[in-house]
Amino acid sequence: MSILVVGSVAFDNIATPSGCVENVLGGAATYFALAASYFTRVRVVAVVGEDFTREHEDVLRKRGIDTLGIEHAPGKTFRWGGHYTDNLNEAKTDFTELNVFERFQPKIPKEYLDTTFLFLANIHPSLQTSVRREMGGVRLTGGDTMNFWINRTPRELAEMLKVVNVLLINDTETRLLAREASLPRAAQRVLAMGPEALVIKHGEYGATMFFRDGAFGIGRHPFRAPALPIDEVRDPTGAGDSFAGGFMGYIASQEELNREVLKRALFYGGVMGSFAVERFGTERLESLDREEIDARFQVFRELTHLE
Amino acid sequence: MSILVVGSVAFDNIATPSGCVENVLGGAATYFALAASYFTRVRVVAVVGEDFTREHEDVLRKRGIDTLGIEHAPGKTFRWGGHYTDNLNEAKTDFTELNVFERFQPKIPKEYLDTTFLFLANIHPSLQTSVRREMGGVRLTGGDTMNFWINRTPRELAEMLKVVNVLLINDTETRLLAREASLPRAAQRVLAMGPEALVIKHGEYGATMFFRDGAFGIGRHPFRAPALPIDEVRDPTGAGDSFAGGFMGYIASQEELNREVLKRALFYGGVMGSFAVERFGTERLESLDREEIDARFQVFRELTHLE
Repeated sequence: MSILVVGSVAFDNIATPSGCVENVLGGAATYFALAASYFTRVRVVAVVGEDFTREHEDVLRKRGIDTLGIEHAPGKTFRWGGHYTDNLNEAKTDFTELNVFERFQPKIPKEYLDTTFLFLANIHPSLQTSVRREMGGVRLTGGDTMNFWINRTPRELAEMLKVVNVLLINDTETRLLAREASLPRAAQRVLAMGPEALVIKHGEYGATMFFRDGAFGIGRHPFRAPALPIDEVRDPTGAGDSFAGGFMGYIASQEELNREVLKRALFYGGVMGSFAVERFGTERLESLDREEIDARFQVFRELTHLE
Repeated sequence: MSILVVGSVAFDNIATPSGCVENVLGGAATYFALAASYFTRVRVVAVVGEDFTREHEDVLRKRGIDTLGIEHAPGKTFRWGGHYTDNLNEAKTDFTELNVFERFQPKIPKEYLDTTFLFLANIHPSLQTSVRREMGGVRLTGGDTMNFWINRTPRELAEMLKVVNVLLINDTETRLLAREASLPRAAQRVLAMGPEALVIKHGEYGATMFFRDGAFGIGRHPFRAPALPIDEVRDPTGAGDSFAGGFMGYIASQEELNREVLKRALFYGGVMGSFAVERFGTERLESLDREEIDARFQVFRELTHLE
């Protein structure tokens, strides 16, 4: 099995109560790819500038990630700067320089057309839809979006929601998309827009997965996975994308595609998110092994399961 | 087994996006007692005024709750008015009339001195400590407090924390009490103040229970219970006290007192909180049966447990 992620690669400046870093490798596709790389073969479609060096690419290649789909364009790589205060659930953006990302037109190498799973990270919904159509044979597509697209491109987003099997967004995005304050009701409205499952990420409170009736087998109830209580969240940047990488990566590693697999995937999402925030940038995600990951999966189980 | 709750009985005016009610029976001791009554024998120490009628008392008596300890004083019963907007986690107080509650001096009937479990609902910490000392033989004491006491009576609260085995408070109260933004670190600081276990109530995101090292048996990890995703939370008033009633009531119904019992109790807390918010005031808590409660316990299990 394999998974293709299409999204941003960036250089980030990040300040949190624990410290600050500059020009560290980031972007949704980077976090997603690193997290998913512990579960399955990962391919990346993204665009970078001339400042993206061999050393940067090696961060991905060392994890066995296929970087053939990373386009090198003239100019600078996408740059983002942000900071967090005591509320680590909310980043305050200091600057955004789109650079080469502004004209990003995903180009899928023909070698990637046999990929079995697809994740559409947060980019313009029309680009997401067009990638999904090009990758006609995938078994399951996950997708992300954000307030900006919900507000600015509702029609394009509506098209995208019809071609995505699992949507992964946060509480605020869910309420905004559904125009409904009650999260369970908002979830039902979002599912009526297309996805078969909706994963709502609650930050430090974990995530809830809602299913459309009959999707992925039988069951009446949503499913909740916790986040790990972590003494010091050093850097929340990329936690959501790492969650998505763990979630989709685990799914892509399984033969079956049913509700039980999706539930375990939700736990693995939490596991990878919990690793991501322990260090700045991608540091922690670069140097894990599957044993550590499965040990933490057991911690999540002890955290939630009765005897 | 039996449990004694000491706290407020009140008449509430409540407005939520789902509607409004006036002069409904409320107060922490009322919600707690009703929720706990499905698990064990419940006794109440509280004070009411001349406007508290036989019909009001019958709400408790119909659930088998012992009302001998409810003192009838000249004057009016405690009254509270509040409203909620879309954020149902936060009540805005419209008015508070303490009335007879202002001079509340808990009087424990001698018939209550053999009670095996104790819950100190949110009252002045000096009163809590004095009740706890009077009830010397209890097996386990639970307690609640609020920002007002954390800010105004820190020394009295410190004494109270030394005589309480399990403290049940919310995220904001935990951070304020510990003067620490990280919830897991704040939890460790609160445990160092006295309690053997700390239950942090997260509202719609459930609750996390932290243990002091070695307390209630072996185990390294905290435990998280979800809240039920409810389409329409009609009235969040009393959810926390109902949670405490389910939690403490279940503990009081068990022979053993160990970590596994406390974990199941955390689920029962969530179950009773989820019922409480489905209707205004105490309506839903008055008319449950144990089968409904255990069926919902199973829903909580399906919501969280992998196969």
